[in-house]
Parts: sequence; structure tokens; C-alpha cells
Amino acid sequence: MKICLMGLGSVGQGVARVFQMKRDEIKQEYGLDLDLVAALDRSGAAINPEGLDLKLLLETKKLTGKVSKYPEYGEEGVSGLEVLDRVEYDCLIEVTPTNIEDGEPALSHILKAMGDGKDVVTSNKGPLALKFSELARTARDNGVKFKYEASVGGAMPIINFAHETLSGCKIESIYGILNGTTNYILSRMAKEGSSYEQTLNEAQEMGIAETDPTQDVEGEDAACKVVILANSILKMDVTYADVEVKGISQITPESISLAKKEGYLIKLIGEVSPDSLEVSPRLVKEGSPFAVEGTLNVATLKTDLADEVTVVGKGAGSIETASAILSDVISIWKTK
Amino acid sequence: MKICLMGLGSVGQGVARVFQMKRDEIKQEYGLDLDLVAALDRSGAAINPEGLDLKLLLETKKLTGKVSKYPEYGEEGVSGLEVLDRVEYDCLIEVTPTNIEDGEPALSHILKAMGDGKDVVTSNKGPLALKFSELARTARDNGVKFKYEASVGGAMPIINFAHETLSGCKIESIYGILNGTTNYILSRMAKEGSSYEQTLNEAQEMGIAETDPTQDVEGEDAACKVVILANSILKMDVTYADVEVKGISQITPESISLAKKEGYLIKLIGEVSPDSLEVSPRLVKEGSPFAVEGTLNVATLKTDLADEVTVVGKGAGSIETASAILSDVISIWKTK
Repeated sequence: MKICLMGLGSVGQGVARVFQMKRDEIKQEYGLDLDLVAALDRSGAAINPEGLDLKLLLETKKLTGKVSKYPEYGEEGVSGLEVLDRVEYDCLIEVTPTNIEDGEPALSHILKAMGDGKDVVTSNKGPLALKFSELARTARDNGVKFKYEASVGGAMPIINFAHETLSGCKIESIYGILNGTTNYILSRMAKEGSSYEQTLNEAQEMGIAETDPTQDVEGEDAACKVVILANSILKMDVTYADVEVKGISQITPESISLAKKEGYLIKLIGEVSPDSLEVSPRLVKEGSPFAVEGTLNVATLKTDLADEVTVVGKGAGSIETASAILSDVISIWKTK
Repeated sequence: MKICLMGLGSVGQGVARVFQMKRDEIKQEYGLDLDLVAALDRSGAAINPEGLDLKLLLETKKLTGKVSKYPEYGEEGVSGLEVLDRVEYDCLIEVTPTNIEDGEPALSHILKAMGDGKDVVTSNKGPLALKFSELARTARDNGVKFKYEASVGGAMPIINFAHETLSGCKIESIYGILNGTTNYILSRMAKEGSSYEQTLNEAQEMGIAETDPTQDVEGEDAACKVVILANSILKMDVTYADVEVKGISQITPESISLAKKEGYLIKLIGEVSPDSLEVSPRLVKEGSPFAVEGTLNVATLKTDLADEVTVVGKGAGSIETASAILSDVISIWKTK
């Protein structure tokens, strides 16, 4: 399977590392040969139809920050669409940075790959939150596979879980902690009694929150995930604008300690149901599955036959997210 | 898809009910026509190559307790193996009562079906705990699918979850509450301060524990599940005799309240790792995912790439278990 990797940030490098770690194992277990034939970042691309050397790729990126410096096969300034035109490949892994304004450049990459009859795996929430139905239709029309487990919950499985593992059930609603950064901040505030600003600063120093934390703390990231779950699992037809969103920046240590006295915690909850698409801080009971700490994500799926099923897992992390991408790639391979 | 259903107890009736409820939906969503061509219980069988009427089947069973009384197509005293020889079918659903002495009659049913080139779905722990490697080999040699999600955890997904949803990861160990009856008893004892005997009686009256509760309370049921998980997910080659088993009948209200004072609960835990196959009462922290109450099951899978992933779901129930069987049937259909 020839793979084209667009994006070589934290997730993209995780994908390269995971490929490196698991190549032999996957070849042995599934008969699947993973060949990375192209990798792209802001600087340009490295393209080798015979397959790139993963160790060299990761070292080049680490030392120079630029994939275009890859010895012999690196090219400066080449665009994603150009790469997709020039290289022969089977599957696009699209992990460029999320853009929830217009979904670009990921949206164009994905639509072009599908139009060319290629399968697509992505962790990129932008295109999914803005153009889900167009993407699903384009995949169907071109007879290609489109998988995006890593876009929601990192290493907490939910999309394939609902579609495959729970295929005998209808999912009626989903309720979950879908953002690890805010869960980390709220858990620390509850534990330390510290203020929102102070805890955010700490999270930024630890690399858990980004320099511009807006997408996380204002609930935008969780809202994107609500849209993806609503479209893909509840088969609704909604977009980002349909979600009511409230973040955590107004939460005070006082409100947290008040809740605590009554046996509750405050968590940023995403709710997905035919009647409600919402992200907002809510009370959850101490001792419930929703009382998870740190950057963990959790989701409860209400089903018609199996009652409630809950999954808990790491919401982020380079290798963790890459593992979800790898599971998607294997799943495509298994249904070939 | 022509289906042969062996066993018409709680799970078997659940399967018939779920087929009845979801037939049209599944036909529409997956293009899968579910036709029950034979059903068997202790009394005999009902066989109709054109498909049995599910409503009539469930009514007959409810009114007479005997599938052999099914109008026109019922037959007294016919054996399972005879049915499998006489009827044309694609998939056997084997849900006769679990027998952990010799796995019969399920073992013979399953091996015959596989030998005849038929796919098999089962919830029956007996054959899996005793003869896993023989069953896996026979399925492979005959090129048939063999699925058994419902054998562990009822509606808590774990086997397909590990094989499919987490296919990019290697599962290194599993740690879980794998028996709902004992979890119900221990949760009630912790809440009410009641004795083991008293709580067991109450559970029996509610139909949560069986008249002979040995399989549950002595840990045998959980041990069967440990064997199934070890073989199927950790790819070990073990059998029931390899599990160290200790049940809950020696647990006193005093030990529970002592644990509680320190912030712990006592739960019957199954551990599956290359170094240890064990079922025993252990302390778990209040507020951890393992502090679940009632008949819930929970399992944490330690993976190489995604760290720990946890699932929580109903461990038993007629419809719930049948939903896992239906998911297996759909999964077989999807890979045809």
C-alpha cells in the first residue's frame, strides 16, 4: 500500500514513527506492506516512488524542521495538490493543521484524492466539521474509503467503535468529554483550587495547551467533534454553525469548590442527540465514568439494544493519535 | 443469509426478538436479509427452509416452553446435529447453555457447522474455554468465519473492539470486571452492609443470580472469559485449567467496610497477561473506572501505542447479549 502523508507536525511525525515501529509486525500479521512514497510539510515535500526512509525522514524533520531538506528526494515549495498529481499512491493520510474557517488546505487535498479514486484517512477536524456531507458523498461517488477515527478523541475509539463493533445497535445519543486540554485544566483547578488563568499558564508551559488556546478552551475543538459524531454516527446533516458552544474560560475556583461540596465536578461536555448539539460546562457526579482526570476523553453511547456503552481513552498524543490512523489504514486494507 | 439458531433460552429468545425488531432496518442499511430457517431447544426443533415466523416462534416458546410445538414445522426429539444435516443455512448461531465440563452439545454443533463450511457466531463460553485453538484452527482450515463477541461481557464490546477498532495496537494485558452477578452482589454488600448469603438470596430472587450460583460466585464464569481473552486477544494458547481462580463467597461485610474506610472497593477482577491468568477479589479505588456498580462489566486494555483504553457496558441481559450476536452476524456479512 503506497501512502502519501500530508502534514508532518506532531501527528504526522507520530504516523512516521508508528510506521517505523510496526512495519514488520503489520506485514506479518496482515500481509500489508506500508510504503510511504511522499511526505509534505509547509516547506515542500519529499517524494520517492520506491518509498522514503522513515528514519531519515524523521531525522531530517527534527534537525532542519523541513521535509524539503530530505536528501536527494526533497523538493522546496511544491504544493500538496502538485504532489498528489505527481506521485502514484493508494491512500492519502491527511494530517495538516486543523482550520475551522474554510478547512483548507486539507479539504482540497482530500477532495482531489477522492476524485482520483484514492482512499483517505484523516485526523483533520476542519473539513469534517464544515463539509461532512460533501466528503461522504464524494467518497461514495468515487467508490473510495474515507476513515477519520483520529479526528475525534485521539486514541479513544468512537467512530469505528459505533460503526463496526456496535453495528447491531442504533446509536441514539452521545455524551462525552471530547477535549483533553480543558479536562486537564478543570481537573487541576478542582484538585489545586487554582484559578483558570494560572492553570491555563501551567498547561501551556507543559505543552498541553497551545500558545493560542482558543480552539480548546472556548469549546471550538469539542464542537467540531460534536459535528463529526452527529453526521457520522447519528446520520444527521449538520455543520459547525449548528452547535451551541460555551467554553470554560468563565469557570471560577469558587464554582468548582461549590460543586465539589455537593459531590459534583465541572466538566466540558459535548452532547450529540437529534434534539441537541451542544458543548458546555456541566456538572457530573464524582465516582461516575465522567469523573476522569487529566487529558483523558470519555464518551457514553446510548444505544437501542445494548443500553449505554462507555469508552475511555487518551484524547491526544502524537503516537496515540497515530495509532488510530494506523487502525484506519489496516481496516481499509482488510476490506480490499 | 439463512440462519440456524441452536438454543432458545434467554439469549436465543433475545436473538429472535432482535431479529424481529431490526430485520427491516438491517435489510435497508446493509442489504442483509436475515432468515431464521431453524431453531432448536431441548424439546426438538422447528425447521422451515422458507424462514420461520419470528412472532409465532416466540409465542410458541412462551406458551408451551417447547419449540417443537411450532405449528406445522415443529418436530419433537430431533437433535442439533440432525438439524444441521437437514437444513440449508449460511450461519450457525450457537447459544445453548454453557457447559464447562466438556463444552457439549455446543462444541459438536460448532465443529460440524465449520466442517460443513458454515460461518459460526456464538455466545457459548464452554467450547471457547476448553477448545479454543481447535476451534480457531478448524475455522481457518475450512475458510469460515468464527465470531464470539457475546461470550465475554454481553453488551460490553471487547473482542471485536480489540481485533478491529484497535487493530493498529498490540494488546499487552487486560484487566476487568467480567462477571455482572458478582459485581451486583459486591456492590450491594458495599452499599447495604449486608452479608454475602443475604445478598446472594436477594440476587437470586431478582433473577440476577441463578438457583445454582456456583459458576458466577466461584469465579468460573469470569475464568472462562479470561481464557477466551487470553487466546483470542493476547494470542496465548491456554485453557481453563491454566487460570488461578478464587470467587467471592468468602468476602465478609467487615472486609468490605474496612476497604471502604481507606477509599477502596472489593471487586472480582479478571487479569489477563502473559505472566498471569487470574480471577480473584481485589481492591479497586473508589472513583476509578472500576468502581462501576450493578451488573456492569468493565475492561481496561493496555496497548503498546494508545496507552490504556477502557470499555464499560452491560455484562448480561437477553436483548443486550443478542445485540452483540447481531453485530457479529453483520460483521460476517460485511466481509463476504
